[in-house]
Amino acid sequence: MNEERVLATYLIETPYSLEYAAAVMAGEQSTGTFVAVPGETAFIKETYGAKVVRITELEPALTPSLPGVKPPKEEANLVFRRGEVVLSFPYHNFGPSIPNLLATVAGNLYELREFSGLRLIDLEVPVQFTEKYLGPQFGIEGTRRLTAVNGRPLIGTIVKPSIGLALDDLRGLVRELALAGIDFIKDDELNGNPPYVPLKDRVKAVMEEIERAADKTGKKVMYAFNITGDIDELRENHDAVVKAGGNCVMVGINSIGFAGVSYLRQFAEVPIHGHRNQWGAMTRCPALGMEFRVYQKLSRLAGVDHLHTNGLNNKFFESNESVTRSVQDCLTPMFRGNDTVMPVLSSGQWAGTAIESYRSMKTVDVLHLAGGGIMAHPGGVAAGVTSMKQGWEAALGGQSLAEYAMTHAELAQAIEKFGRP
Amino acid sequence: MNEERVLATYLIETPYSLEYAAAVMAGEQSTGTFVAVPGETAFIKETYGAKVVRITELEPALTPSLPGVKPPKEEANLVFRRGEVVLSFPYHNFGPSIPNLLATVAGNLYELREFSGLRLIDLEVPVQFTEKYLGPQFGIEGTRRLTAVNGRPLIGTIVKPSIGLALDDLRGLVRELALAGIDFIKDDELNGNPPYVPLKDRVKAVMEEIERAADKTGKKVMYAFNITGDIDELRENHDAVVKAGGNCVMVGINSIGFAGVSYLRQFAEVPIHGHRNQWGAMTRCPALGMEFRVYQKLSRLAGVDHLHTNGLNNKFFESNESVTRSVQDCLTPMFRGNDTVMPVLSSGQWAGTAIESYRSMKTVDVLHLAGGGIMAHPGGVAAGVTSMKQGWEAALGGQSLAEYAMTHAELAQAIEKFGRP
Repeated sequence: MNEERVLATYLIETPYSLEYAAAVMAGEQSTGTFVAVPGETAFIKETYGAKVVRITELEPALTPSLPGVKPPKEEANLVFRRGEVVLSFPYHNFGPSIPNLLATVAGNLYELREFSGLRLIDLEVPVQFTEKYLGPQFGIEGTRRLTAVNGRPLIGTIVKPSIGLALDDLRGLVRELALAGIDFIKDDELNGNPPYVPLKDRVKAVMEEIERAADKTGKKVMYAFNITGDIDELRENHDAVVKAGGNCVMVGINSIGFAGVSYLRQFAEVPIHGHRNQWGAMTRCPALGMEFRVYQKLSRLAGVDHLHTNGLNNKFFESNESVTRSVQDCLTPMFRGNDTVMPVLSSGQWAGTAIESYRSMKTVDVLHLAGGGIMAHPGGVAAGVTSMKQGWEAALGGQSLAEYAMTHAELAQAIEKFGRP
Repeated sequence: MNEERVLATYLIETPYSLEYAAAVMAGEQSTGTFVAVPGETAFIKETYGAKVVRITELEPALTPSLPGVKPPKEEANLVFRRGEVVLSFPYHNFGPSIPNLLATVAGNLYELREFSGLRLIDLEVPVQFTEKYLGPQFGIEGTRRLTAVNGRPLIGTIVKPSIGLALDDLRGLVRELALAGIDFIKDDELNGNPPYVPLKDRVKAVMEEIERAADKTGKKVMYAFNITGDIDELRENHDAVVKAGGNCVMVGINSIGFAGVSYLRQFAEVPIHGHRNQWGAMTRCPALGMEFRVYQKLSRLAGVDHLHTNGLNNKFFESNESVTRSVQDCLTPMFRGNDTVMPVLSSGQWAGTAIESYRSMKTVDVLHLAGGGIMAHPGGVAAGVTSMKQGWEAALGGQSLAEYAMTHAELAQAIEKFGRP
């Protein structure tokens, strides 16, 4: 790791030579502009200029992936060259600041007309950069400590319907889930602080139910309250959760920005559950935006403890390979010894996805969320929770789903309801 | 305007029927999930469900614009239907909160595999939503008042080289620009608070030069200091600028989020100059992300006074038609009588772009920035400023560039240097 420079890796597509295109990126994002200016001395270029570290040529394309590219005049049969380019930026151009780093590594360069594709795929920052940011406070170990769950994934759910549940119905649902032995419950990302049931009323009702159930079962459910809101509200909402005995807060990372997350991290007393809604807009076009590898690094630096990764066979566009890679990224130490975060498997999950998840991810350090997969279980919510645990028992015991279901009714019911044809 | 619902307009592309696809969006972003759950009652659906207001069919596509779409099984020759869809969401699902609104109108729906394209193109929120947010504090009128420029655009520049300029060189440059009668100077978006010259040192040096020049010329230049940083730094940096007599602060909107902007707006005593770096990642893929029309509304609600729109013939991918539309959007009142913001024309601008800008935009309410177009003027920086004013004199006087250049040497020099072949 270079201590003085940030390394940014891109996939690019351009009708120019890869060398020329990489030089344009380096110039635009450091000392250059569209014409030479008198003050851009050799000293400034050498001291503050970005450098092209490596270019790896890939298979070219015959049509541009993005509109607005301006090809060089001389060429008749255009080829859009593709390559992986590593640039290095002097750390002293921006210092330890995610917001200012973003303007450099992910700023105007997306708009450059020399490119028909530009995607940030990896990022490495010096240790001195990371010292400004607190990183995950609880992470996997702290989450396990708070929930007393070891040797298996945390099983969780998302309150459904996402929106509109009356307070009494929410109470009943939380009570049922807590008594059924669920580890974790979260609000939906759509449910923040709506006028029809303000967050503070939800916190009070939910925590009463959780404490009451804990008195009976000896197990206190972790509940991630969606405290997403404007900056001032983050502290107010966080404090309301903590004061009521709550043990987790959730935020939409893209709704409050990395700046909002690192602000929250400074005073957070409980784990921060990072939801990534809006992420699709940043990543679904393969020639634009950024890879999850970069996103999860920035989210971890800013201080989330849990991070959504999708689950296998999800209801979204993402492939299973991509989900598995995301999980592995979250579990890879980055800077400090213990800065991994708990990947959150979610979307279209049910008991049957446990075996496949364990086979491809090879870890129990995940938070496995089933919304419909628990709520819509034919035997009811408690049976839904039990079926999820059974799915993981089968996975960890090396048994097939069908085999384990023969002696476990809730799992059998889940297969009948959710099993794919 | 509906007082109880938010209207969101999308361009969609899907292998399903437009009706089915619109219903999926509405369900996913309000009360539904991937299976029916017991709590989703008719009452909840009616009271909290999103509704499909209108579907307009457009020309279909034969290939999907985005990967990951899951076509319906029965079809052999797939057609990807395109349409404009308007959804309405009950206001009480999220209340007056940009962060929570975003989770609904621009959240997980980008990832849905029923779509091969999904782009948010317009957004209307009820007045009660806008009452939470302060909107532009200075806008066009306040910026004109502070700079005493009327009847013509504000002429400005961006300090170049973007990064690396020593404090003494910056002093000299600001002095020269101020004495030449420039209206506005801004930091580059790459230059925030770098360790080699911290923001506070820059503020002190720049403001000394500006005040000294004002003593001579009677005109105080507006300087937009790039105060982008983490949340706590926003107030600290803002206060340092104001304390030194500064009259504008700049932020990277996407670096601090709309939440960061509205936080800054609460205590800002000077205009907020909104830079949109990273915007390309949100908009360049035509089948994903959002249109500037939405982005500028959210930026204005959050409270920027100036907003970057690109300029004509810019160095980026954006077309002149798109730039002109963006400028018009910024100049269209939204909610309150006086909530327009000053569009900032920038990127590849010089004296010669004035006439064309005036012809297509039909307004003088723009801040026209030339970086290289002033810094690299063959007659020097002062001549660069003069040439920009001359360009606008020609535009407003209805003269051609060539004609006006015959009697105006600085304009003639600019044409020779920057004029396109």
